[in-house]
Amino acid sequence: QARYKIAVIPGDGIGREVMPEGLRALQAAARRFDLAFDFTPIEWASCDYHARTGEMMPADWKAQLQGMDAIYFGAVGWPATVPDHVSLWGSLLKFRREFDQYINLRPVRLFEGVPCPLAGRRAGDIDYCVVRENTEGEYTNLGGVMFAGTEREIVIQESVFSRHGTDRVLKYAFELARSRARKHLTVATKSNGIAISMPWWDGRADAMAMAYPEVTVDKQHIDILSARFVLQPGRFDVVVASNLFGDILSDLGPATTGTIGLAPSANLNPERRFPSLFEPVHGSAPDIYGRNIANPVAMIWSGALMLDFLGHRDAHDAIVRAIETVLAQGPRTPDLGGSASTTEMGEAIAALI
Amino acid sequence: QARYKIAVIPGDGIGREVMPEGLRALQAAARRFDLAFDFTPIEWASCDYHARTGEMMPADWKAQLQGMDAIYFGAVGWPATVPDHVSLWGSLLKFRREFDQYINLRPVRLFEGVPCPLAGRRAGDIDYCVVRENTEGEYTNLGGVMFAGTEREIVIQESVFSRHGTDRVLKYAFELARSRARKHLTVATKSNGIAISMPWWDGRADAMAMAYPEVTVDKQHIDILSARFVLQPGRFDVVVASNLFGDILSDLGPATTGTIGLAPSANLNPERRFPSLFEPVHGSAPDIYGRNIANPVAMIWSGALMLDFLGHRDAHDAIVRAIETVLAQGPRTPDLGGSASTTEMGEAIAALI
Ligand SMILES: CC(C)[C@H](C(=O)O)[C@@H](O)C(=O)O
Ligand SMILES: CC(C)[C@H](C(=O)O)[C@@H](O)C(=O)O
Repeated sequence: QARYKIAVIPGDGIGREVMPEGLRALQAAARRFDLAFDFTPIEWASCDYHARTGEMMPADWKAQLQGMDAIYFGAVGWPATVPDHVSLWGSLLKFRREFDQYINLRPVRLFEGVPCPLAGRRAGDIDYCVVRENTEGEYTNLGGVMFAGTEREIVIQESVFSRHGTDRVLKYAFELARSRARKHLTVATKSNGIAISMPWWDGRADAMAMAYPEVTVDKQHIDILSARFVLQPGRFDVVVASNLFGDILSDLGPATTGTIGLAPSANLNPERRFPSLFEPVHGSAPDIYGRNIANPVAMIWSGALMLDFLGHRDAHDAIVRAIETVLAQGPRTPDLGGSASTTEMGEAIAALI
Repeated sequence: QARYKIAVIPGDGIGREVMPEGLRALQAAARRFDLAFDFTPIEWASCDYHARTGEMMPADWKAQLQGMDAIYFGAVGWPATVPDHVSLWGSLLKFRREFDQYINLRPVRLFEGVPCPLAGRRAGDIDYCVVRENTEGEYTNLGGVMFAGTEREIVIQESVFSRHGTDRVLKYAFELARSRARKHLTVATKSNGIAISMPWWDGRADAMAMAYPEVTVDKQHIDILSARFVLQPGRFDVVVASNLFGDILSDLGPATTGTIGLAPSANLNPERRFPSLFEPVHGSAPDIYGRNIANPVAMIWSGALMLDFLGHRDAHDAIVRAIETVLAQGPRTPDLGGSASTTEMGEAIAALI
């Protein structure tokens, strides 16, 4: 019997409501596939914790989590009491960087039974993966303000791209594309406007492409690429993007499949030197928190990605099939036009695993 | 009789095919509203010109254009012979900066007769304006590469925001929102990830909002904002964004209305110290150039924005009404499911003005 130590961090808002459903699905998979989980519930990375301690996490967070096989994460953020950049840089973005989770993998799929906001698209028409660089690029706190508080105020914000960081995400994306049926990779860029980093990024993609002659590649500027996510979603297979562009594309993509309440993500350290982290793409959604109506699918599907990463493809597939069935037949939460609660939808999925 | 000197720069690719239709519409409007145009055709800003001279424009381009009332611009770019960042920084982006066209105004509207890629939306459901900062922000050539050509390569890309540049675009957007029926402004941000410039940008928006109590404001992160352009397009009225975010939103928005072949843009220097520039949002589209099938509406509508800026609201409205009629009744170009040529569609619009 395989046994895994999983840190369970619900975080804030609807993270707290969808997490129990994620755990329920994992437990169902454990029973069926003879796995064992030691779940360690952890209350950091929530704005409540911040209110009590003034920090998002204790100083020794890294030591405490280092022995875990994975981190299962809800959502973080409660802007009414803690500004987003404080809560996020103090938890989620810290995990991504300090545990070197340099791949953010975000599948985008249109399911049967989910009303698609795009006209005339059916289940199967949209099925691609966004591979997002997850540690560097545009997300930095480098730079500063000159002449602060005066009319002459000037702000510099620096983005940082390394060859190390860029080549490894490109390599991952090329490998993934090569393993898929269509073997097609789209590289997001904006080299016509952002004149230093993006032409350089294009060059790294060109260099990497030489090693993958089986993969067809096209580079697209982020503006027209966003437009094509809406107009021609069927043309995408694997899309690789910088941290910011990947962030945008991995909300936009799921939106075209009906709701961001479905979209899962895997923050991976592929070499397993550090624990990887699995979380919904959606945030803590303070506006709907407390009503038990949040869609639990993104949380549950993220758990499936965790099992896949841990080597249990069969358990992953069983969870995804249960999700497919419940999306097609109900019960469904209100964001999908249904009237089920978070719990009801989660129970229905667990029952099918 | 009002008389205007207009620099006409077709540029590259389909810019050369849609420009004649733009001029045809302007001439029709001139006859009807008793205006006179001195059109000065200019061959710079094309990659042909670059092939002949090694530059996109002559050294005295500014002096030559300074006396113009406006610049009517097709599209620039021919990546097969000139890299995009060379052609664009040598022409379009130079105009925007050196003529201080700090507002890029991009209306987004769903028209009758245009198949909408979003399910269940009708003409009127999507009707908003993107106000994009057009001179600074993320579009810079500041930064550089360290350890170039080695494994340790590190690239810094700097964004630059000034209070001067930020406050003026915010002010323009608040004024525009206040002048509209719904008086709602959405501020695009990413202050949870981009930790220096974006929290500062939010602060400038908050400060400006104090002066506009009649305008309701919401700030949205660019990732979820992109998702809502697809899921809830009806909630937008005026959207203000940095250079990069405005670029993305103003391709995505038009995509949700059917085709970026419709979307016009006005690059404005509102104080009229320098000529303003009017151009389609679409680019030079080398893939369809030479077949006379490009949709001329974006070019023609951009001409209408030019007339509006020159003070002729009636002429603007007449052109837009002609566009509405032809979109509803045809003839239509292939991107709209029709089989008309660029010329046929342009002639039909001109005939109705
Ligand atoms: C061609 C490119 C540099 C330009 C931009 O990014 O501004 C274009 O996409 C636009 O939107 O006008
Ligand atoms: C909350 C935010 C910092 C985060 C990001 O931008 O990475 C989120 O949008 C995501 O996509 O995981």
